[in-house]
Amino acid sequence: MAFGWIDEQARARRRAGLVRTLRPRPADTPLLDLASNDYLGLTRHPEVVEGATEAARTWGGGSTGSRLVTGTTALHTELERALAAFCGFEAALVFSSGYAANLAAVTALGPHGSLIVSDAGNHASLIDGCRLARGETQVVGHADPEAVRKALAAHAGAAIVVSDTVFSVDGDRAPLTALAEACREHGAGLVVDDAHGLGVLGDGGRGAPYAAGLAGAEDVVVTATLSKSLGSQGGVVLGPARVIDHLVNAARTFIFDTGLAPAAAGAALAALRLLERAPERAARAREVAAELYARLTAAGLDAVRPDAAVVSVRAPSPERAVRWAADCRTAGLAVGCFRPPSVPDGISRLRLTARADLSGAEIERAVRVIGETRP
Amino acid sequence: MAFGWIDEQARARRRAGLVRTLRPRPADTPLLDLASNDYLGLTRHPEVVEGATEAARTWGGGSTGSRLVTGTTALHTELERALAAFCGFEAALVFSSGYAANLAAVTALGPHGSLIVSDAGNHASLIDGCRLARGETQVVGHADPEAVRKALAAHAGAAIVVSDTVFSVDGDRAPLTALAEACREHGAGLVVDDAHGLGVLGDGGRGAPYAAGLAGAEDVVVTATLSKSLGSQGGVVLGPARVIDHLVNAARTFIFDTGLAPAAAGAALAALRLLERAPERAARAREVAAELYARLTAAGLDAVRPDAAVVSVRAPSPERAVRWAADCRTAGLAVGCFRPPSVPDGISRLRLTARADLSGAEIERAVRVIGETRP
Ligand SMILES: Cc1ncc(COP(=O)(O)O)c(C=O)c1O
Ligand SMILES: Cc1ncc(COP(=O)(O)O)c(C=O)c1O
Repeated sequence: MAFGWIDEQARARRRAGLVRTLRPRPADTPLLDLASNDYLGLTRHPEVVEGATEAARTWGGGSTGSRLVTGTTALHTELERALAAFCGFEAALVFSSGYAANLAAVTALGPHGSLIVSDAGNHASLIDGCRLARGETQVVGHADPEAVRKALAAHAGAAIVVSDTVFSVDGDRAPLTALAEACREHGAGLVVDDAHGLGVLGDGGRGAPYAAGLAGAEDVVVTATLSKSLGSQGGVVLGPARVIDHLVNAARTFIFDTGLAPAAAGAALAALRLLERAPERAARAREVAAELYARLTAAGLDAVRPDAAVVSVRAPSPERAVRWAADCRTAGLAVGCFRPPSVPDGISRLRLTARADLSGAEIERAVRVIGETRP
Repeated sequence: MAFGWIDEQARARRRAGLVRTLRPRPADTPLLDLASNDYLGLTRHPEVVEGATEAARTWGGGSTGSRLVTGTTALHTELERALAAFCGFEAALVFSSGYAANLAAVTALGPHGSLIVSDAGNHASLIDGCRLARGETQVVGHADPEAVRKALAAHAGAAIVVSDTVFSVDGDRAPLTALAEACREHGAGLVVDDAHGLGVLGDGGRGAPYAAGLAGAEDVVVTATLSKSLGSQGGVVLGPARVIDHLVNAARTFIFDTGLAPAAAGAALAALRLLERAPERAARAREVAAELYARLTAAGLDAVRPDAAVVSVRAPSPERAVRWAADCRTAGLAVGCFRPPSVPDGISRLRLTARADLSGAEIERAVRVIGETRP
């Protein structure tokens, strides 16, 4: 029978306690949210909502076509200019998602004959980009610039190094300065995904590459999502204008995808303007993360020191992680739960996000619930 | 130098007349639009705009996380139920784009050891799905069920056949009934992309699989985009509940991607409700296409008989296609222009889309401009 093998896989997942189900959420809930990626607490900000509604009223529900046909509105261009200026790059290109932006950057910059050096902890979308690219991928150990250097030294010809700036599972930071040095020694390009850095790291949230002094460099390309700190949907690639022009001409997830919906572009632009006016939001997200970490550790929990706004707490097994997250929810707290195959090392975790708009009392309450429900 | 090879490629593109540039459009333009994929003319319909704005006001600018964490709102579930019911399938799963939906369906249903039989004219996103999938891909000639049969006969084990229902370049239809027969003879699954069929083909726009009597079949999975007839952004996979559950658990572009923005879900749902109330819009889009084709052919132009709402007109070369489209634009008409590498056969075309809301006078004007500017 067609798709017959699916049932055996479903049974195996059930046996392993790894079944995933969707839980629709209501618009208003008394749950304290430490699960979303709304790092700056902007997604329901009136100006962000107004950015979305105004764009829908002006442009309609969709962009109506590929960016190369009818899908580029003046709003897309305005958003691209604003993102490039904010992050300190010459040019920017907006995509329908961060996933699509990563597929575009890696495939268009890792052509046949080139080497792609990829961190073992990279996000699924970067990994899929490596798989789709015509270049040869070499996976190196997590956050290991020496391994990167070795891989580059062994290859003659074009090369890129690909890494998250902040890794999504544990919230730890990549050694950007050392990676850039290794790239420069070998004339390689550096392609980094700042999904969890934009809005949180760097002066006023300009991102991890900005913080590392890499913004605007000729040999650096940054990708990011508009769906976390910017409270919307979409992705962006930032870099030299010649690299962005190349993506316009060569990236399949740009050419063959409908342009980002105007409402999403409008919401992201409004969030960016808010952040420009209130740069302290970025620092506050980092403070909340540091406080969460300090309190969790003081309570004897196995948390990872956060480099940005993601705080990860280890759980003894997938089943107990699921149970722990469910018990938190019963006690009024929403937390993320990462299990195989979403974790590279097989270790299940609770994943907490530090929103800039969490109060001291909320942080205290969150830590209390997590401690009281621990397995 | 990093990215040095890009400049040589850029020069080669310039020499070949294949440079692509973005042309931002204003919100209001006197241009007659035959370039967008807004087949039903719904993207700026007040109810669709209201669907977007109401959703943004209720839920915020973004869905705030992966569909498996915080990114499934009650609105996503409502949209999924409505799409499944409308198209006649047991279940549906919404994605951030049609591209992501195609990557999900092909990779999750074409595992290691399986065979993926793919039409040579398939959309880039299906091709990328084949490249990413662990199964072995065999590309067969365009719209050739005998070749599909042969490929399936030569393989023992799980297999899927992957095809667009309406091919995006020439607007021709796949032989769905014959493909389904070939699949059933060999116990293979049929995965079809109805991006250009939904809203246009089938009773009231229920799509090409519905028209072919395949809706709701155990062995059929349909993907579609929310960005064309439904005037929004996003993608969907429709199929048996067990297949959809499998995607929830296995599809990387579902698990590792932020959920569709609420405004996009709201706009698509509003468009679907409109279509349910005014099913004649679907037939009207087909009528407009037939009339465009008849008039273009009568004017001596080399058009392809449309099976849905895409009408393609062949041009003598990439440069002349670009010039032709530019001359149309100068004369007040926006048309699409497809050139290599976006065309599988290397033939450049003007690509016209038949909107349900085009008047007879607009059709006449469009055909006159295309004829007067022909190379
Ligand atoms: C590191 C990283 N990169 C890319 C993405 C994908 O971005 P998007 O959700 O906008 O597709 C995510 C998460 O969603 C992420 O965590
Ligand atoms: C046949 C086909 N499939 C899939 C897609 C991708 O859908 P989306 O633009 O929603 O990513 C498109 C066009 O955009 C298409 O023409």
